[in-house]
Amino acid sequence: MFVLGIDPGLSRCGYACLEVSPGARQPRAVALGVLTTPPSSPTPVRLAELHGELVRLFDELTPHVVAVEHVFFQVNRRTAMSVAQASGLALAVAAGRACEVVQYTPNQVKETVAGYGAASKKQIQALVQARLGLARPPRPFDAADAAALALCHLAFAPLRRRLAAQQASAAPAGA
Amino acid sequence: MFVLGIDPGLSRCGYACLEVSPGARQPRAVALGVLTTPPSSPTPVRLAELHGELVRLFDELTPHVVAVEHVFFQVNRRTAMSVAQASGLALAVAAGRACEVVQYTPNQVKETVAGYGAASKKQIQALVQARLGLARPPRPFDAADAAALALCHLAFAPLRRRLAAQQASAAPAGA
Repeated sequence: MFVLGIDPGLSRCGYACLEVSPGARQPRAVALGVLTTPPSSPTPVRLAELHGELVRLFDELTPHVVAVEHVFFQVNRRTAMSVAQASGLALAVAAGRACEVVQYTPNQVKETVAGYGAASKKQIQALVQARLGLARPPRPFDAADAAALALCHLAFAPLRRRLAAQQASAAPAGA
Repeated sequence: MFVLGIDPGLSRCGYACLEVSPGARQPRAVALGVLTTPPSSPTPVRLAELHGELVRLFDELTPHVVAVEHVFFQVNRRTAMSVAQASGLALAVAAGRACEVVQYTPNQVKETVAGYGAASKKQIQALVQARLGLARPPRPFDAADAAALALCHLAFAPLRRRLAAQQASAAPAGA
């Protein structure tokens, strides 16, 4: 199973695809990097470019689950709009391919991967490196954050499955 | 020439395509309506649906210019994220087809179409009806707002062309 983490952004959109095999000791990083668009181009052109890059990425990686960072406006007003627009593209491409789409807040990711919500980007980078057995810290931070999103989902997945099973068994017959 | 106005939104995305013919007394409304997605569906699924609807709309209307409302976060926090995401989709689809893409703020639209920035939605609706010679007021408000965006662009287009020509002639030779 392939889990693709996406840390949306217009200048740098981080991605990390992890393979989870039954019996494997740890997930394996299949792909890890950033999609970039030139700040000198107009925003609509950059959004179209990012959409094309995302489509190519999904074609290549064929993920089953896509974990996208849940973005908030409060954090950084200057980049908030382009991050929101980039996240919209990622969510649309993922759902358009019938992937399971999940969203986690930055705090959920940090608490799950690092154990506390105030973890620094450098700490996340080091933890991702250790968890995936990488020779070097994943760079840039956006790629490491995307890998942390995928790891966060792997931690939450058993709970999500249990909840879904409970809801299905609690639903009235024939509903 | 076809000018497509888009008032982005996930529950209702207004659109209005105006045809401008040389010598015609007024622009003609070729298409006017809203794209909707069901609030009961998950957001990523709705974004994928809206993207598909926008692609079909652009296929059908083949606009030359696309005027998208410039959205702000301050206005309505509850719907701001989905409006931002929907606007990202519209901008990406438009730029991906090499349309000229322009954005106007709600105030620019109201000042240009109604003469003052505090115009109500009902006033915009009536003005759009009058300007386009429609038998009935365009409904819902989102469709009227999209038509107002296209009308706003038609008012600004001569100024934009003059500015572009000035910039081109001011650029150093060979630049």
